[in-house]
Amino acid sequence: MRATVMFGAGDVRVERVPDARLMEPTDALVTITRASICGSDLWPYKDMAQTQTGRRMGHEAIGVVESVGSEVRTVRVGDFVIMPFAFSDGTCVFCHEGLNTSCVHGGFFGTESVPGAQAEAVRVPQADGTLYVLPGRTDEALMASLLTLSDVMGTGHHAAITARVRRGGTAAVIGDGAVGLCGVIAARRLGAERIILLGRHPDRIALAEQFGATDVVSERGAEAIARVRELTGGFGVHSVLECVGAGDAMLTAVNIARAGGAVGRVGVPHYAATPGSEPAFYGNIGINGGPAPARAYIEELLPEVLEGRIEPGRVFDRLVDLDGAPDGYRAMNEREAIKVMVKP
Amino acid sequence: MRATVMFGAGDVRVERVPDARLMEPTDALVTITRASICGSDLWPYKDMAQTQTGRRMGHEAIGVVESVGSEVRTVRVGDFVIMPFAFSDGTCVFCHEGLNTSCVHGGFFGTESVPGAQAEAVRVPQADGTLYVLPGRTDEALMASLLTLSDVMGTGHHAAITARVRRGGTAAVIGDGAVGLCGVIAARRLGAERIILLGRHPDRIALAEQFGATDVVSERGAEAIARVRELTGGFGVHSVLECVGAGDAMLTAVNIARAGGAVGRVGVPHYAATPGSEPAFYGNIGINGGPAPARAYIEELLPEVLEGRIEPGRVFDRLVDLDGAPDGYRAMNEREAIKVMVKP
Repeated sequence: MRATVMFGAGDVRVERVPDARLMEPTDALVTITRASICGSDLWPYKDMAQTQTGRRMGHEAIGVVESVGSEVRTVRVGDFVIMPFAFSDGTCVFCHEGLNTSCVHGGFFGTESVPGAQAEAVRVPQADGTLYVLPGRTDEALMASLLTLSDVMGTGHHAAITARVRRGGTAAVIGDGAVGLCGVIAARRLGAERIILLGRHPDRIALAEQFGATDVVSERGAEAIARVRELTGGFGVHSVLECVGAGDAMLTAVNIARAGGAVGRVGVPHYAATPGSEPAFYGNIGINGGPAPARAYIEELLPEVLEGRIEPGRVFDRLVDLDGAPDGYRAMNEREAIKVMVKP
Repeated sequence: MRATVMFGAGDVRVERVPDARLMEPTDALVTITRASICGSDLWPYKDMAQTQTGRRMGHEAIGVVESVGSEVRTVRVGDFVIMPFAFSDGTCVFCHEGLNTSCVHGGFFGTESVPGAQAEAVRVPQADGTLYVLPGRTDEALMASLLTLSDVMGTGHHAAITARVRRGGTAAVIGDGAVGLCGVIAARRLGAERIILLGRHPDRIALAEQFGATDVVSERGAEAIARVRELTGGFGVHSVLECVGAGDAMLTAVNIARAGGAVGRVGVPHYAATPGSEPAFYGNIGINGGPAPARAYIEELLPEVLEGRIEPGRVFDRLVDLDGAPDGYRAMNEREAIKVMVKP
């Protein structure tokens, strides 16, 4: 069969390759009806080292099931299916929590062991968990939108969900690529009242506005930050959908978020490893917190203190008068005391 | 009056200073009953540059209201109060959201403009919003616990809340200082079934166990990560309470979090500025997201596609056959196409 193979940066070829075939009893073989090129495919297109064997590209597809392995139970030959970019068994603890990308038997298409879907056919591991069977006949006009459910629309939705877009809130979408544009759709669906697109391409901006973007910021860096703050009374937005994955986009993201807000990052991180990148990104691990609104918490905690149900005061293991304060610092610094109380 | 002044690293003195007094009509003057030294006071104690004027330390206190400004409405002379580490007006949009630390008229004690509370008395700005008036008589035995509500207990609670501690979940607390110990109390209160303390000091570990820690990991770095994973079936914990603020603690935090979990960071960041540090920390801005569980989202999004309520397929602006795939990469890379669909 024929398949798309990337041999290095800028070097994509369509090659004859061995036919895709069932390898595990849980596999399905899917004939590709439509596949697509993802923004994340452009990263290796920019910087992949030249190889002899190449990488079989493509992780977004819809198609028809050609054959199934002996242990496949729900997916049937002839089914019209969406193939999400990650395969997953659908039964593990993470799949049950809706986090299929962390499936203990899962993985991604377009890698060494699982060739991609920009091809005539693809082997789909964990077919029952991975493939989504579409109901009945399918209108040709819907093909494109159905295809986006394999990645970009789901990814834009994930950006909106993890950025905690809420009804009546404000949102900013960084990036006017396909994911960013789907992020606009998602933010609107979830009820954001104001949706600021950070992008520079007139055609994409026009589409974003049709999708629901209310404002456009085409500046970058410090100017973009200033402009978003200006549009939001100085505060920034409740939700930032980071749909790029570059370091400067992440810095813009945290600088245009309103205090107490959230960034939903779905751009695959292409910046130096920081606590915000790997493995936090791949594990969908949230990094939250900051200075505690201690005043707000007193209401909840005080009754438990007054009733003796919690005894946080036990962290104090030294009492000094004001003159003892300097030695209190020393004692805490030298780990001699956990915490010092000062009675002036 | 007398007050604690830090002049540089390791140089803390108790000095005679001008009496604290009302300056704004919204101020209260509070006589300090108890103050305390905070773990965060140790950062300048370690690295503050020597100064002539010094810094008036202290942001955790309880005390009695001595006098109030003309615009103070609810706080009265004689009230016994908790002074949280940040002052806040109690009326702005952030205060209404319970995020007093981002109050538009707020700030912190122990700075240039608002001297600290490790002193005989302190001026409290925005008294009505800042001070929490305690009910009636107060048992001497409760003083210590009440004092913790000004900071460390609220901060441990915030770590637990932002790490999304849930009933029956697993939690890890990084740091066995006062905040970490209060984090153990908080995690237990919120129903964590398993609470792993990462700490090394026997006396603190003993207290943590009394507070509810079920496991202790005294290793550091890669060994600590391996040990926590070992304790949790290889997965890591749902919630990590990062109560240190050092770069290696944050790296440990994201490496012991379970996929889909959360880190609640309350340690003031003392590591290089990254998207996870400033301004995300000071603004309590969450950084969430990762690869989208696209499979899980199809259920929700498909009906809207089928009914034509959303049209994400419009992001495709080029259709190619398989042979056209290489040029499709080029076109997307050169921003000539938003997104390319491949029909094999």
